[in-house]
Amino acid sequence: MPTKALLIIATGENAEDWRSELVKVAPDLPIHVEGEDFDPASIAWALVWRPVAGYLATLPNLEAIFSMAAGVDHIFADKQLPDGIPVVKLVHEATRQQHRDYVLHAVIHHHRDMMLFAERQRRKVWQFVRPAMNSERTIGLMGAGPLGAFVAEALVGLGFKVRVWSRSPKAIAGVDSFHGYDQLGDFAKESDILVSMLPRTPETIGILNAGLFALLPKGAAVVNIGRGDHLNEDELLTAIETGHVSGATLDVLRQEPPPENHPFWEHPRIRLTPHIASEPNPWVTALAVVGNIDRMRQGLAPEPLADRAAGY
Amino acid sequence: MPTKALLIIATGENAEDWRSELVKVAPDLPIHVEGEDFDPASIAWALVWRPVAGYLATLPNLEAIFSMAAGVDHIFADKQLPDGIPVVKLVHEATRQQHRDYVLHAVIHHHRDMMLFAERQRRKVWQFVRPAMNSERTIGLMGAGPLGAFVAEALVGLGFKVRVWSRSPKAIAGVDSFHGYDQLGDFAKESDILVSMLPRTPETIGILNAGLFALLPKGAAVVNIGRGDHLNEDELLTAIETGHVSGATLDVLRQEPPPENHPFWEHPRIRLTPHIASEPNPWVTALAVVGNIDRMRQGLAPEPLADRAAGY
Repeated sequence: MPTKALLIIATGENAEDWRSELVKVAPDLPIHVEGEDFDPASIAWALVWRPVAGYLATLPNLEAIFSMAAGVDHIFADKQLPDGIPVVKLVHEATRQQHRDYVLHAVIHHHRDMMLFAERQRRKVWQFVRPAMNSERTIGLMGAGPLGAFVAEALVGLGFKVRVWSRSPKAIAGVDSFHGYDQLGDFAKESDILVSMLPRTPETIGILNAGLFALLPKGAAVVNIGRGDHLNEDELLTAIETGHVSGATLDVLRQEPPPENHPFWEHPRIRLTPHIASEPNPWVTALAVVGNIDRMRQGLAPEPLADRAAGY
Repeated sequence: MPTKALLIIATGENAEDWRSELVKVAPDLPIHVEGEDFDPASIAWALVWRPVAGYLATLPNLEAIFSMAAGVDHIFADKQLPDGIPVVKLVHEATRQQHRDYVLHAVIHHHRDMMLFAERQRRKVWQFVRPAMNSERTIGLMGAGPLGAFVAEALVGLGFKVRVWSRSPKAIAGVDSFHGYDQLGDFAKESDILVSMLPRTPETIGILNAGLFALLPKGAAVVNIGRGDHLNEDELLTAIETGHVSGATLDVLRQEPPPENHPFWEHPRIRLTPHIASEPNPWVTALAVVGNIDRMRQGLAPEPLADRAAGY
């Protein structure tokens, strides 16, 4: 039996960025990159981003699949994914910080009218707005797993009113919990700033739509860092044009990059960032992956595990 | 002796915004607005923004002067200010939150390349940047009184390296303290994001200048929420044009509003906000002022007091 090796599958990314950091953290670990010449039977671990469907099933001795991101939909999209192999999400302190900081920035951006001030700077207008106090503003966070809870706690720490909506009820200090589609309306009706961190599942696709926007308070803002197909983009445009939604910060889109004629590019009330709410840092990824390999060598399960039945 | 009354002096602002909130908090308190007909001898307290020089000295029974803002330079600018009357800064939980949130937003804006992404959105370019980790980024905060310390602690809580520079050494958990002009160079040389919250005094005017910018690491960002004349605006432009400074967020300028031909309006690397880092909320101000009047009626000193000798 050959020495156990790690395989990197980094579709659309430069795999060498990850290899160079993994080599620093684990100089004795054999590492291969997809497309190189190696023995498939040697691969015990795969670190993957958007693997080609069916490929992972060709590795006979695979023990774990590590996602390069917190999301694992790019792995579960493979209908031939081998059964019984743990799929591990990338959630590291740096991942949590990146999500949290992106959301804090977006929430303050909308709460403190920064989008309006950017427009006023372009028009050379120096005119203040008296802000609401944090205690008067409700942030509605969709998705309340470990990452969402971490973000919710940070928002509570800043003095905002915070509510979460998720599949099952959550107990997070200082946070109102809503769950299931029956409670989505109650959740939405006081969410001044709606932030989606939802995972991509069949139940959540298209959830950010005209029906939900209509439930929000007038002037609410929308932030999406989940997945692009959570959002009905045309219906967001309409909601902004009617003034019911005041603006949006979007880190993910249905098509990335969006086409040159996409109306969001030049929209003054839509701020786009290129899928960077959490940008996997290869060094952090290397620490997390090697840490999990060490756990497995000691007979422990890697963590945090994705739930294949739930889809995230 | 007439019933003690409060006088509102709100130069350039609408005094009624303050009166209407004060009436709610203290319905029995006699309140006058500058320009109305009232007995000067009745005025025991003045709530002021930019009072005309010499005016406060005409009130024979004045017991305290309340600033409408955290800054008190607009009061100490009056060379005929009566001696021995306490000058009280406006520092309320909401004031602290506003300063903190503005700085957190500006720091994350520069840390996470949001200015670059705004440029890329305008150019229709969807391209990520791999961010530094918070633990790799040093925030240098100038000004470390109670407000500055509150902000510094919040930045430490997000995982940044934080250092402060102030007139005297400070003990803030997790923060490196530098003080005095001898230590300004050591402070600056590792400040990746320089944030000034300095009060306006003769010693601090013009402190954000070419000499200081040259000491910063290449690519540093500059944030100013102190006073406009801390900054040499031409020297900032030059530092950005050479690439040594990557960008700036400015809430205060030498002339507010800036003239129509001011180069900052259209500069892609300068983000302007119209002096809103802390925008006094009349309701919060009313709570703080009435709280201090109650303290004085009980024989206690109002708080927090400004130090006339120090100038802030």
